[in-house]
Amino acid sequence: MARRSTTRDRLVSTATDLFSRQGYGQTGVNEIMQRARATSGSFYHFFPAKEDLAAAVLERATEGLETEVFKPAAETADDPVERIFAVLDHYRQRLVASDFALGSPAGCLAAELSETHPLVRAKAREFFDVTINRIESLLDEAADSLVAGVDRHEVAELVACTLEGALVVARAQQSAAPLDAAVGGLRRHLGLLRRADVGAEDAPVPMRPAPPRLRHNADWRTW
Amino acid sequence: MARRSTTRDRLVSTATDLFSRQGYGQTGVNEIMQRARATSGSFYHFFPAKEDLAAAVLERATEGLETEVFKPAAETADDPVERIFAVLDHYRQRLVASDFALGSPAGCLAAELSETHPLVRAKAREFFDVTINRIESLLDEAADSLVAGVDRHEVAELVACTLEGALVVARAQQSAAPLDAAVGGLRRHLGLLRRADVGAEDAPVPMRPAPPRLRHNADWRTW
Repeated sequence: MARRSTTRDRLVSTATDLFSRQGYGQTGVNEIMQRARATSGSFYHFFPAKEDLAAAVLERATEGLETEVFKPAAETADDPVERIFAVLDHYRQRLVASDFALGSPAGCLAAELSETHPLVRAKAREFFDVTINRIESLLDEAADSLVAGVDRHEVAELVACTLEGALVVARAQQSAAPLDAAVGGLRRHLGLLRRADVGAEDAPVPMRPAPPRLRHNADWRTW
Repeated sequence: MARRSTTRDRLVSTATDLFSRQGYGQTGVNEIMQRARATSGSFYHFFPAKEDLAAAVLERATEGLETEVFKPAAETADDPVERIFAVLDHYRQRLVASDFALGSPAGCLAAELSETHPLVRAKAREFFDVTINRIESLLDEAADSLVAGVDRHEVAELVACTLEGALVVARAQQSAAPLDAAVGGLRRHLGLLRRADVGAEDAPVPMRPAPPRLRHNADWRTW
């Protein structure tokens, strides 16, 4: 059983890498089997169709959001808004380390297959939903430090969509510059939504002081 | 000559539609030829390889940015920032009219082929570059109405990346809601970057009044 599970894991990991680099249509089942050192018998045992493997790639990506993306991001900063930027930085590091080859698995598979592969679309949707919900919950944690009237769901959608689009544009340009510029724009925006930041020189003193855990607060001004 | 040119046009239009709906790998040359009523002789006369057709799709999309996207957007509003939102609305209308099937041709082709098809990547990059430059030039036109210190290139990258990502997420969700939320976030951000808007009640009166052509200015407050 352990051996089977390992083969399945290798197939999913290999497919995650290949689909994120070169798309679904350009990646043959044979290439996946060879790289994962799997026989066609074991491949079709786990994945009756290639689409099932794409669905498994997205399921694992969604499962990994907490352990591989949001939890490590939480360890880099106490401030929930800084944690959002640590999440964005996770994808930046992955992109740069792969020499601008690795896109978002959900973004790549959704862009290519949403219309023709409803199962893949549903799994990609779950990935986006969880991403957006987790970003929104970080904004909820930061609510006391935000100006009144911030639509936190809207901001979470903006952050998630910006990330997906910036990864595509950055890969096309073979450069982190579009991602850095877009994230810079988000930093500016989140800075403007911060109570302590908005009109620090111009506006009335906020009714409540920012909570002491916002130790990175001073940095927001320079964004 | 006219007939040949028409066949080529039909091939490019058909491929634009099919690649934007169902990706490059899922679209066979035979399907394109049938729908475009073209023989294989004429197909390979114009496009020695399928990749050449993808490059032509992106070339035409880039050429069409001015006449089909930015010029019509300019006719809907005098305010340059409103024109940016008219551009975003163009893509929203295209998405909704296609029942959430049609993504951005450049986004779809770049996500799928950037790593394996350098010619397609270069053409997608041109599309993104022209889009970002045109958005930035609209922000330049609006410069007098923006607060000091706005990095207009950064904002243009943010807008373009948000659009590309939001189209992917909206297709995965089969709903305009992610696009509307992300664009709502951009509206809020651009509103905060407007001189007349920033801290209207709290901040000092701007040194210069907003130019009179900004007739939509009052609306920004309600975003």
